[in-house]
Amino acid sequence: MAIITLTTDFGEKDHFVGAIKGSIYSELEQINIVDISHSISPFNISEAAYIIQNAYSSFPKGTIHMIGIDSELSPENKHIAIKLDDHYFICANNGIMSMICAEIAAEKIVEINIHDRVETNFPVLDIFVKVACHIARGGTLDVIGKVINSIKPIKNLIPFVNDEQNQIIGSVIYIDNYGNVVTNIKRKFFESLQQGRAYEISARSHKFKTIFNKYSDILNDDQKESKRNIEGKGLVVFNSSGYIEIAVYKSNNSTVGSASTLMGLKTMDTVTVNFLNP
Amino acid sequence: MAIITLTTDFGEKDHFVGAIKGSIYSELEQINIVDISHSISPFNISEAAYIIQNAYSSFPKGTIHMIGIDSELSPENKHIAIKLDDHYFICANNGIMSMICAEIAAEKIVEINIHDRVETNFPVLDIFVKVACHIARGGTLDVIGKVINSIKPIKNLIPFVNDEQNQIIGSVIYIDNYGNVVTNIKRKFFESLQQGRAYEISARSHKFKTIFNKYSDILNDDQKESKRNIEGKGLVVFNSSGYIEIAVYKSNNSTVGSASTLMGLKTMDTVTVNFLNP
Amino acid sequence: MAIITLTTDFGEKDHFVGAIKGSIYSELEQINIVDISHSISPFNISEAAYIIQNAYSSFPKGTIHMIGIDSELSPENKHIAIKLDDHYFICANNGIMSMICAEIAAEKIVEINIHDRVETNFPVLDIFVKVACHIARGGTLDVIGKVINSIKPIKNLIPFVNDEQNQIIGSVIYIDNYGNVVTNIKRKFFESLQQGRAYEISARSHKFKTIFNKYSDILNDDQKESKRNIEGKGLVVFNSSGYIEIAVYKSNNSTVGSASTLMGLKTMDTVTVNFLNP
Repeated sequence: MAIITLTTDFGEKDHFVGAIKGSIYSELEQINIVDISHSISPFNISEAAYIIQNAYSSFPKGTIHMIGIDSELSPENKHIAIKLDDHYFICANNGIMSMICAEIAAEKIVEINIHDRVETNFPVLDIFVKVACHIARGGTLDVIGKVINSIKPIKNLIPFVNDEQNQIIGSVIYIDNYGNVVTNIKRKFFESLQQGRAYEISARSHKFKTIFNKYSDILNDDQKESKRNIEGKGLVVFNSSGYIEIAVYKSNNSTVGSASTLMGLKTMDTVTVNFLNP
Repeated sequence: MAIITLTTDFGEKDHFVGAIKGSIYSELEQINIVDISHSISPFNISEAAYIIQNAYSSFPKGTIHMIGIDSELSPENKHIAIKLDDHYFICANNGIMSMICAEIAAEKIVEINIHDRVETNFPVLDIFVKVACHIARGGTLDVIGKVINSIKPIKNLIPFVNDEQNQIIGSVIYIDNYGNVVTNIKRKFFESLQQGRAYEISARSHKFKTIFNKYSDILNDDQKESKRNIEGKGLVVFNSSGYIEIAVYKSNNSTVGSASTLMGLKTMDTVTVNFLNP
Repeated sequence: MAIITLTTDFGEKDHFVGAIKGSIYSELEQINIVDISHSISPFNISEAAYIIQNAYSSFPKGTIHMIGIDSELSPENKHIAIKLDDHYFICANNGIMSMICAEIAAEKIVEINIHDRVETNFPVLDIFVKVACHIARGGTLDVIGKVINSIKPIKNLIPFVNDEQNQIIGSVIYIDNYGNVVTNIKRKFFESLQQGRAYEISARSHKFKTIFNKYSDILNDDQKESKRNIEGKGLVVFNSSGYIEIAVYKSNNSTVGSASTLMGLKTMDTVTVNFLNP
């Protein structure tokens, strides 16, 4: 049974998500519809890019991912469908896919051109559902669009490295449910520059000299601190998606606070890594 | 495979929705359960009416819609099941269905009378699930209730028109996830009165002279304004459900603000259309 | 078709829940995945315990329940799988299951020991999914863990009774979506002590002398009060899960207020029952 996933900024309350699912079931009785997220901040392309990048690859090959963020059709905002890594993505050409496409070459990109056949003022419902069901039935991308070679990039998603190769200037791209602060610095990228050197990570006035592999590694950290001081303490970790993340052990925005609230870190803030010369 | 949809004010956190799904799967192994919304404001009949009206018709004929809003049984609040437009609806007789029934005549309405057979203090779980599964198995409404001829109406959902037929006094019935303000004035109703006349729409101190067909039409609006002034600017649009909606282009409650926050518009507020005599 | 339920504190926004579902579908094409809740307060064991206890038994026998709360593996926080009441539970050994296990003896408990076979820093995704799919395919617990005899308890979940058997000192364990305040005093426990005596329930300065069987019973309460005073009025009820609950009729945190906001009651607050000697 084919799988269609949904990632939108429609929220949990409105009727849009329900209507989309009804629409899909009206076209295809045998289909698995899976919500990835409907709580993306409205029109936030970077958040959507981060979420879809980290969710899609857990799904089976052939899965169809509908992304409904800033998807109203305009001359500057065309609709596209992409085949990449044996997955299908349907979205507006607004940069959402540029994070994934920077790492994995798209097999095929088409600009969707079935709009003359469908009158709509709700593109995710009408156009994206038509395209998704077409693919789920085994249809090819060529039938619903014309091939294009590149997509619109998102700026500021790639960290900057200085000429001396001893400083990475990154930025915060996502705050998660625990208030943990995710940067745009990936482990592989960090390690390729580090080459065994010691380092210091700075975010506002906060400094860190260790990156843990998981949150609870702080429990065994040899800093002679009593364990009762650890809850609510900041740490840096490679998160489960492979990004450098500033976290607080067992954080909770409404009680002990979180990395975001305690350190005052927000999306787009700068996080710097300085490598110390040996 | 039959489809049962769920629309409730149970929220995303409590165990109620999970328990209802478990209960349905315990009765029927082959069933598709689809969430429409669980984030209706508690006991808010109008919100629920708007959401179910705009979601139901996307689903295939024969779909069964369970609506769990203000559904505790009392002498004033009976349980009903309705067949309408080849869909089934199970809810309390509290006005939720009056918006749909005002447009499409119900084929059959029954007052559910199986309560003596089921001891319960959680009607959506126990009674509604029993009824929904009965219908999903192909059962008829007559078996689970006695036919009635009319349902309880909701007041104030219909806009008022003056004797001169040059003014519509409507009201706000829903604020969506983007903070857009939905009125109870439908496009068809508006156009039947307009008959080509110019008009002015007023909401508090805000006035509008154009209704767009989609949000991005404001980008091409011939008002000689620079494009950078458009984000955050108010506009009026026929929304995807066919209602007059006051919106803000690319609104976001937590950044640029929304129609609701920027113009101070809330549910039940008045929105007036004045037609100008030619 | 087997059913896997998910109960986590991952929230509605992040990619984690989507990734878990993708991961399950990658292992098993024919599986029903049902969300119970992803909005548990971060790391809140008691909330999770209350929710899973009241949701699980509605599901068919054989259902597999994955609980992702505070599940990072550490020497103090092992992973376990439990067979109980013909249901399976996969979680960390952090007390979540102690509420259910206090009432129903577990048939089998194993400490999961497949971690050497799976490299992970996201245990719910990698370890719990592997175990759940193993069980869904008909596998036994012995293959994925070694049998243990007891699990970690949660403190403070059991109400205290004085020596004279005329006072129960309970506490608030959950605040629901309507702001209703759920205590840890179960109906059966209350009635076994009451033995027909009159009683008074106290929570802060609020006193109640009646426990209703459902919210709307207050409408028929013979207290000569006008009905218009009932909305927003406090009452005590045996809730649909069998716990004593302090509620407000038709409560709504953002309009009339709720039991929690109006009476200032929070999780862990004390609720006392005094039985009056005949």
